[in-house]
Amino acid sequence: MTINHDLFKLTNLPERPNKPRENGITMVMDKGLSTFQAASLAESGEHIIDLVKLGFGTSLVTPKLKEKIAIYKQAGLDIYLGGTLFEAYLVRNQIEDYKRLIDNLGISTIEISDGSISLEHEKKCELISQFAKEYKVLSEVGSKDAEKIIPPYAWIEMMENELQAGAWKVVAESRESGTVGVFRGSGEIRTGLVAEIERKINIDNVIWEAPQKSQQVWFIKLYGSNINLGNIAVNEVSALEALRLGLRGDSFDFFI
Amino acid sequence: MTINHDLFKLTNLPERPNKPRENGITMVMDKGLSTFQAASLAESGEHIIDLVKLGFGTSLVTPKLKEKIAIYKQAGLDIYLGGTLFEAYLVRNQIEDYKRLIDNLGISTIEISDGSISLEHEKKCELISQFAKEYKVLSEVGSKDAEKIIPPYAWIEMMENELQAGAWKVVAESRESGTVGVFRGSGEIRTGLVAEIERKINIDNVIWEAPQKSQQVWFIKLYGSNINLGNIAVNEVSALEALRLGLRGDSFDFFI
Amino acid sequence: MTINHDLFKLTNLPERPNKPRENGITMVMDKGLSTFQAASLAESGEHIIDLVKLGFGTSLVTPKLKEKIAIYKQAGLDIYLGGTLFEAYLVRNQIEDYKRLIDNLGISTIEISDGSISLEHEKKCELISQFAKEYKVLSEVGSKDAEKIIPPYAWIEMMENELQAGAWKVVAESRESGTVGVFRGSGEIRTGLVAEIERKINIDNVIWEAPQKSQQVWFIKLYGSNINLGNIAVNEVSALEALRLGLRGDSFDFFI
Repeated sequence: MTINHDLFKLTNLPERPNKPRENGITMVMDKGLSTFQAASLAESGEHIIDLVKLGFGTSLVTPKLKEKIAIYKQAGLDIYLGGTLFEAYLVRNQIEDYKRLIDNLGISTIEISDGSISLEHEKKCELISQFAKEYKVLSEVGSKDAEKIIPPYAWIEMMENELQAGAWKVVAESRESGTVGVFRGSGEIRTGLVAEIERKINIDNVIWEAPQKSQQVWFIKLYGSNINLGNIAVNEVSALEALRLGLRGDSFDFFI
Repeated sequence: MTINHDLFKLTNLPERPNKPRENGITMVMDKGLSTFQAASLAESGEHIIDLVKLGFGTSLVTPKLKEKIAIYKQAGLDIYLGGTLFEAYLVRNQIEDYKRLIDNLGISTIEISDGSISLEHEKKCELISQFAKEYKVLSEVGSKDAEKIIPPYAWIEMMENELQAGAWKVVAESRESGTVGVFRGSGEIRTGLVAEIERKINIDNVIWEAPQKSQQVWFIKLYGSNINLGNIAVNEVSALEALRLGLRGDSFDFFI
Repeated sequence: MTINHDLFKLTNLPERPNKPRENGITMVMDKGLSTFQAASLAESGEHIIDLVKLGFGTSLVTPKLKEKIAIYKQAGLDIYLGGTLFEAYLVRNQIEDYKRLIDNLGISTIEISDGSISLEHEKKCELISQFAKEYKVLSEVGSKDAEKIIPPYAWIEMMENELQAGAWKVVAESRESGTVGVFRGSGEIRTGLVAEIERKINIDNVIWEAPQKSQQVWFIKLYGSNINLGNIAVNEVSALEALRLGLRGDSFDFFI
């Protein structure tokens, strides 16, 4: 669907699937928005945002958190708490408290990650498998540490295992800045790594964190309008949707 | 006028013309704001923003677009759709649909550009001339492609022709980033180019896209408080106005 | 206090003092927010923001300024006008008008700075001393000019004198960008300078302007969760609080 199609009548735009959808997903990073800002984001994003991540531990310091979650849900946006918070509970042996928290918040999607902790991969897959019985699980692959370079075969193996264990999608970590994981410190893309992953993993099962515009352009150019993209800044949501439709200078000639 | 003059009583501030005005224009880039954000921008910008550009194709993916336009109009802000959208219609031979769209939206200012398409300059001037009969026309000069370096004489010739054809102002393209056109990829200013343009073209007829603070400072230092500036980010509007008044560190000693 | 502690039950978080407090202070830079945005910031920041600076001269161009100040006060946020505005009055010999202005606005905290003007240090201390009788004074040390490198002993001497003269806290200037003062042009920290200051000055009496995340991380790592930080961007307030609590990748292992 295209939001103002009847008004604009612009022809030959790339198809975008309706929500809920398995590809063409846009995941947004909320770093502690107020209820005012959430209402604003929900208005802009009702049809184009799939997932809102309450980034790292910001949910813990957000007043009116339940009201905010209600606003997002009302607009059909799926919410989850950033993986760093999950890790904070895990490292403190408070996983049961974590489950109580998300149940209390009415959240049914969770992120299982090990970006800031050491976690045996087998243990991570067990956690995925266990949580997948009750929740929709996003599992994140890749370290937040720019020094830890994971070779392509290991990326693929982890992604395969985590999907096998029950993850709905795997998320390719890049941080809010887009400077680790499939990106170099400069934000440049490790194109060979992405290509190898794409040969082995169904790309609809991956959400690529790609906060920088140049990264978004690269993914859309190579893999089309409906590539799953994440860690989008709240004020870039409409701009990304225009980019997906070839209605920005950077992608203008991809689809005509 | 200076907004809080009666309250602040600060003397020796540079004069700023009242709206509607021919110079001292601030053009803002709206990349898909919600109605909440538009109301907020309208409050801040009622007296200091002249033009709001609904950037590239974001208007097509903005829910409550008509409500948003009404909010801006109510506050006396002139709205137009980004030139990239015009080009999307033009390249699809849908110019009549474009006219119906803007009439339907109650928009009377349009941007005619060729930043993403190839368009014979004669044809562009014909379009300007044709639209100028019914609309206020902004015509944009310069490519979005950093590789296409246009020499000064060609900038001047195009600007002269487009103004002659009926453009209200010509806009010097620099993108949202401020890295093409009169700027180098680094954002640095092609000072010789600007100086040559200024010698030949009445500078009140040009709007310089200058999203970076250093670029704004440079233009204000050289051409004064009332230089026309565009592609200002929504959260920099008041900061730019303070800069124009010499009330920011960067411009503090320009006017005293 | 930790905002959602009862809901989250996450153990072993660093202690944060309740407001009003002498350390752990977060000072935010408001560059001309509307009343909508101020209400949003007040919601997010009621418990975690101490001070809102109406940056440089933006207050002069903000419509509904009094309504905005009322919103902040209502939420318990202390407001003051940026030092650049103070300097604009001082350089025009309008200090009495400045006093009338802040009294009229109901503002009781002021910043005395010389970032954009030349001011004998003795005269500055006199001003501090005079204003400290009626107002809470923040005095700012450091130039906005990247060329003016002040040696450590001079930083320390100025800070000592200004605290002695009656300043509530001294603010270490770094601009909105974090590229002068205790930072290099690249944003890198002059670590030796900070260390020397910290040896001589009670660090609770200093507010470090540190707009960049890497700068915030560095200060929190070295001096703990309750280091006083300033010039925080409005959309980074919750993220900084999470950082202080070790709930962001960058600070995850500082406190466990």
